[in-house]
Amino acid sequence: MEFNIAFIGFGVVGQGLAEILLEQEQELKEKYDFSFKVVAISDAVKGSWYRRSGLDLKKLLELVEKQGDLKGFADGIEGWDSIKTIKETNANLILELAWTDLKTGEPAITHVKTALENKKHVVMTNKGPIALAVRELLDLAKKNGVEMRYEGTVLSGTPALNLGLYNLAGSGITQAKGIVNGTTNYILTEMEKGLSYEDALKQAQELGYAEADPTADVEGYDALGKIVILANTVMGANLSKDEPPCEGITNITAEDIAKAKEEGFRWKLIAGAELKEDGSVEAYVRPEKIPLDHPLANIMGPTNALTYTTKYVDEVTIVGPGAGKLPTGFAVLTDMLDINRIVKE
Amino acid sequence: MEFNIAFIGFGVVGQGLAEILLEQEQELKEKYDFSFKVVAISDAVKGSWYRRSGLDLKKLLELVEKQGDLKGFADGIEGWDSIKTIKETNANLILELAWTDLKTGEPAITHVKTALENKKHVVMTNKGPIALAVRELLDLAKKNGVEMRYEGTVLSGTPALNLGLYNLAGSGITQAKGIVNGTTNYILTEMEKGLSYEDALKQAQELGYAEADPTADVEGYDALGKIVILANTVMGANLSKDEPPCEGITNITAEDIAKAKEEGFRWKLIAGAELKEDGSVEAYVRPEKIPLDHPLANIMGPTNALTYTTKYVDEVTIVGPGAGKLPTGFAVLTDMLDINRIVKE
Repeated sequence: MEFNIAFIGFGVVGQGLAEILLEQEQELKEKYDFSFKVVAISDAVKGSWYRRSGLDLKKLLELVEKQGDLKGFADGIEGWDSIKTIKETNANLILELAWTDLKTGEPAITHVKTALENKKHVVMTNKGPIALAVRELLDLAKKNGVEMRYEGTVLSGTPALNLGLYNLAGSGITQAKGIVNGTTNYILTEMEKGLSYEDALKQAQELGYAEADPTADVEGYDALGKIVILANTVMGANLSKDEPPCEGITNITAEDIAKAKEEGFRWKLIAGAELKEDGSVEAYVRPEKIPLDHPLANIMGPTNALTYTTKYVDEVTIVGPGAGKLPTGFAVLTDMLDINRIVKE
Repeated sequence: MEFNIAFIGFGVVGQGLAEILLEQEQELKEKYDFSFKVVAISDAVKGSWYRRSGLDLKKLLELVEKQGDLKGFADGIEGWDSIKTIKETNANLILELAWTDLKTGEPAITHVKTALENKKHVVMTNKGPIALAVRELLDLAKKNGVEMRYEGTVLSGTPALNLGLYNLAGSGITQAKGIVNGTTNYILTEMEKGLSYEDALKQAQELGYAEADPTADVEGYDALGKIVILANTVMGANLSKDEPPCEGITNITAEDIAKAKEEGFRWKLIAGAELKEDGSVEAYVRPEKIPLDHPLANIMGPTNALTYTTKYVDEVTIVGPGAGKLPTGFAVLTDMLDINRIVKE
């Protein structure tokens, strides 16, 4: 079908997606019957443009890459804020890619609700709305007859979430367990090579894997948000974001790592969710010693991986990037193509 | 939606699927809005039954497990052959799970064609029809407005094929490369532990991983059939089954394996397909020395794995079982659920 797309937020992910869309437009139409116009881009800082018959995406991308904002584009209506863009443009697919406060999930939750109430499909990559309000939002989507997707919230474009939600539907998933934070996995990998924790962290910061304040990564909170999303959406749990026990990697020493390896194990920061016999789901984030012959033990550097334990297909593991401009941009595309597959005009 | 299902063939895969369906019926309805009746089972050896309002699947499964056939069931019409069952029952979804001649693809190709021409959806796990006639069959499905799925032809229920076809659609796949034959991977794993090729093969035969005549596995032909399916369906190639170069594992010695490991590599039987700059696709099966830090190097025993190299999400690898009663039965279920998602009544 034909989608009129509005970007809410035009940062790294939005620009990554724009790059892919410009390169793949023809193939997406021919191979997947996916046609689109980008009718609006609304970014609180970079500026906003709306043109009913479609914006010149190439020009806008060049502009933001050159000058850091969208000023002076001058081919459409300028200055509509996110809510007006969601409500009043002719977009039928809203991409929620704006900056979000992780504690409140705002303004993303309001953006998504507004879009769904106005019967527009939504794709997002922000963890906030899903970690905090996924049930409510899915109900709202259903009530309004539209689709909502969020593959990019876990392992970016590596389709770990949709694997559990769709491909492994009916397989009897009893456990999801994996390496869902690339920063800490990079640090552990470098420590095994001989670096101290402090030096490995510094290197991760220099490479852009870790933030200046690395707390969310190294204390496990980022991984926790992701496993809560997996538990709640794939395994039917109803966990709040702060409920499960969470331990990061700050207590692991170079000696721990060397000793484990001698014994045939490797320390990994594992996020897990397990279905209990009473039907409840328990989630956790903690360092675990993984046997070297398990697929998760050999995931090195910033790579991510997730293993589903199922009743009918044993263990299925997916390995791939967990972050990045193009991988996260692609996460949005895979969700859009899935909506395109299942929604008939 | 509601499916009326006909099983064409009721061997190991059909029985595995029946077991899953009986266990999951309630959940499939509640979670995925997937309702079904098994209206017909037609097996050339075990017998055939048709009942318009639905057969007692539990009773039929017990019967075949107890006595090896469906004789004496006596609750429906007995004896319709596969073609009559496909054409004249009220089934709207045909499961092609019969024995098939790998050289001709028959009778599976005829079964699938007949089903599609009669506007019935098809799910199959036999490689034959896909390796030999996938284009023609997909065109026929499209022309008749029905769906055809075949996840089980590659890596059984590990969703390697649908990952490439759907989840990684638009990712710019340039290469598919993996361990797609569990028997040879089991043999190589045991040889690394110290067994000779002959002893490892014998052990694989005793465990049921290898056939009495192991040629198709150890010479690479089974892997070749699978990579041709991947190349033709995921990467848009048009290769014939006998075209690509194919080398098995019979020339690998215990010394080769030990030497590679010292150098930081592991021998694996790799099936690969690569997109060339001129747009053509080259496929091959051959032993390759894989660096120990690559996900494929650490796939041991009968486990299978496939790595897609893409333009936008780098490398995405999926690991899981490549055979088995329940994993292959589940492959049929995952395809049925996908049809259920995209087909609206």
